[in-house]
Amino acid sequence: MTVPEIDPFHAIAISSLAHRLAAEGRSIIHMEFGQPSTPAPAQAIARAQHILATDPMGYWESEPLKARIARHYLEWYGVTLAPEQVILTNGASTALVLALTSCFTPGARVALARPGYVAYRNTLRALHMKPIELPCGEETRFQLTADMVAALDPAPDGLIVASPANPTGTILPDSAFRALMDVCRARNIRVISDEIYHGLTYTEATHSALEYTHDALVVNSFSKYFSMAPWRLGWLVVPENLIHTARARMGNLFLTPSSLSQHAGLAAFDGTDELEAHLATYRRNRELMLEALPEMGLAHIAPPDGAFYIYADIGHLTDDSLTFCERLLRDTGVATAPGVDFDPVDGHRFMRFSFAVSTDQVREAIARMRPWFTERGKEVAQASDE
Amino acid sequence: MTVPEIDPFHAIAISSLAHRLAAEGRSIIHMEFGQPSTPAPAQAIARAQHILATDPMGYWESEPLKARIARHYLEWYGVTLAPEQVILTNGASTALVLALTSCFTPGARVALARPGYVAYRNTLRALHMKPIELPCGEETRFQLTADMVAALDPAPDGLIVASPANPTGTILPDSAFRALMDVCRARNIRVISDEIYHGLTYTEATHSALEYTHDALVVNSFSKYFSMAPWRLGWLVVPENLIHTARARMGNLFLTPSSLSQHAGLAAFDGTDELEAHLATYRRNRELMLEALPEMGLAHIAPPDGAFYIYADIGHLTDDSLTFCERLLRDTGVATAPGVDFDPVDGHRFMRFSFAVSTDQVREAIARMRPWFTERGKEVAQASDE
Repeated sequence: MTVPEIDPFHAIAISSLAHRLAAEGRSIIHMEFGQPSTPAPAQAIARAQHILATDPMGYWESEPLKARIARHYLEWYGVTLAPEQVILTNGASTALVLALTSCFTPGARVALARPGYVAYRNTLRALHMKPIELPCGEETRFQLTADMVAALDPAPDGLIVASPANPTGTILPDSAFRALMDVCRARNIRVISDEIYHGLTYTEATHSALEYTHDALVVNSFSKYFSMAPWRLGWLVVPENLIHTARARMGNLFLTPSSLSQHAGLAAFDGTDELEAHLATYRRNRELMLEALPEMGLAHIAPPDGAFYIYADIGHLTDDSLTFCERLLRDTGVATAPGVDFDPVDGHRFMRFSFAVSTDQVREAIARMRPWFTERGKEVAQASDE
Repeated sequence: MTVPEIDPFHAIAISSLAHRLAAEGRSIIHMEFGQPSTPAPAQAIARAQHILATDPMGYWESEPLKARIARHYLEWYGVTLAPEQVILTNGASTALVLALTSCFTPGARVALARPGYVAYRNTLRALHMKPIELPCGEETRFQLTADMVAALDPAPDGLIVASPANPTGTILPDSAFRALMDVCRARNIRVISDEIYHGLTYTEATHSALEYTHDALVVNSFSKYFSMAPWRLGWLVVPENLIHTARARMGNLFLTPSSLSQHAGLAAFDGTDELEAHLATYRRNRELMLEALPEMGLAHIAPPDGAFYIYADIGHLTDDSLTFCERLLRDTGVATAPGVDFDPVDGHRFMRFSFAVSTDQVREAIARMRPWFTERGKEVAQASDE
């Protein structure tokens, strides 16, 4: 057996190029990564400053934070959790590794949507598990359906669901989510629900997998809604009967997340006003983008119900999304992510815009991209005339 | 295949009991965990405060920190590293997971010393690898030897070495380390060297595996010498030809460590005066313990060349180290770690003291433990008379 090769994340190459161009004096707008450009809420920062000034700290697992997160499930979803079901992690990435190693063994088959977050596929591969990628297009809002999972033969061991999803931002409506969970229960498929974009929604409400089943594991973090990505704090909710298994893995493989981040994370729950203001910004940004994209010739986009992404079909302009995004960056200073990061099969004709920047930056990005995309459209029309 | 059961860390149970007793008003001295009781160096805290006040932060991989760590290898060991060989991690735990998944596949056989740090065995098991535990006693200073590894048939795929070691604090002398690395090279055994206690030595100098081989992976962190355990910042040094493999795993499985911790970690390199003062405290504590232990009837101890541990044979007093440590805690308020955490076979007759506390606390702990151990000795003598 050899150590499996896993794909690079091409958006990192785009970002590196963006930073090199910035160092040369170019004006860059960063729409390539999925992180808020805003800092942690003021309450979180103040709490961290206070702890730094007064507390020598030690390895720590914050019981108040676990209890607060459990309460959050009651407040947001009407779901009752014991605080012990909440395992604090170094971000959602670690929570996913913890979930996978607690539920599955090497060779396990885990179904997921394509397009999807690149780390699902790569983490499964690195742990010697087998991603079963189910192609999801516009007709299913780029989401898995109960029918797709019912048709799998044999049934997979597990399934990763994400609503809102990355890179598309689409949300599973209540009935579709319920049907998907029902078929997983019936076929004995263990569900891992990535709920990292919860709180960031523009159309309908998001639902937690825990509203439908007690057997799901839920991955979440302080990186998106709470605007604390660089603090590396997340959590995993596990069913009662997996608490021991998952906690033993957390303690041995990772110990604990940063003590300072745990203090700050608890205080972040008091920063709702600031966080809701960020959401209002994203809402404006999204509207500006939805208005501008058709004018740029990008008519086929996934409905961005949540998160802060737009996943756009650029198949009429290119069959090489990486080169296309590089050219856009070099020509306009707007950094974006190529679809190949999220879909190795069809991603060559898609790109992802992250609008978690300021509204002024979105306006400026649109002003730069509109003529550029118009030019690309003309180039293609000329080439097909010749 | 089922998800493997992994052992709990009994010192956590001891610590929980200690905290319950403290809540009841008892005076507790914490010698159960391997973490400094001192905060991060003042320079690190000041830098973190400055960043919190001025920088919104984002996901980040600090190039200056990687370069500074590379320079550290030149300064401490005369070893030249490219900064790209340094991968920043969420502590040494994550660095070990990264090392194992970058080098080995499920079923891989990895040799290590028994007694040893419990997480080596448990992490290997959680990743479906096979720990080959080699019993190491007083005659080899509780360390692996070249002869032991030469005698293994078949040769293992890998080997984990730790010098100074946990729980014993013993150091591999230059010649013994070189011989061990030579036999690993000759037998094509991949070495992971855990160097987390480097900088904390009392007798002879410690050596890095990189002084003997370019093929080893080195795990280290800011948790011990740098006194930054709760900041969850560590690193993995990888050979040139593993940079891509290991970086791809870091990015997908864990993203990055805390940005704030990276800023603080770089500043910690300027806190040497404070850190050397901690070392002087540990040196005094160690001397007090070495003086007191024979008076307590603990004559057989591993030579604590480094780290901040003493691993003592209590076989004349008990064959159940967990119960013994619980009773010591309940009777005297001194929390310690039972040997069973480090050695599932012989650990029932050992215990570990961590002296990373203040010198006053060590004096108080000794004052409480001396009469208690004398009483235990009398009990045993009476029982054998009867």
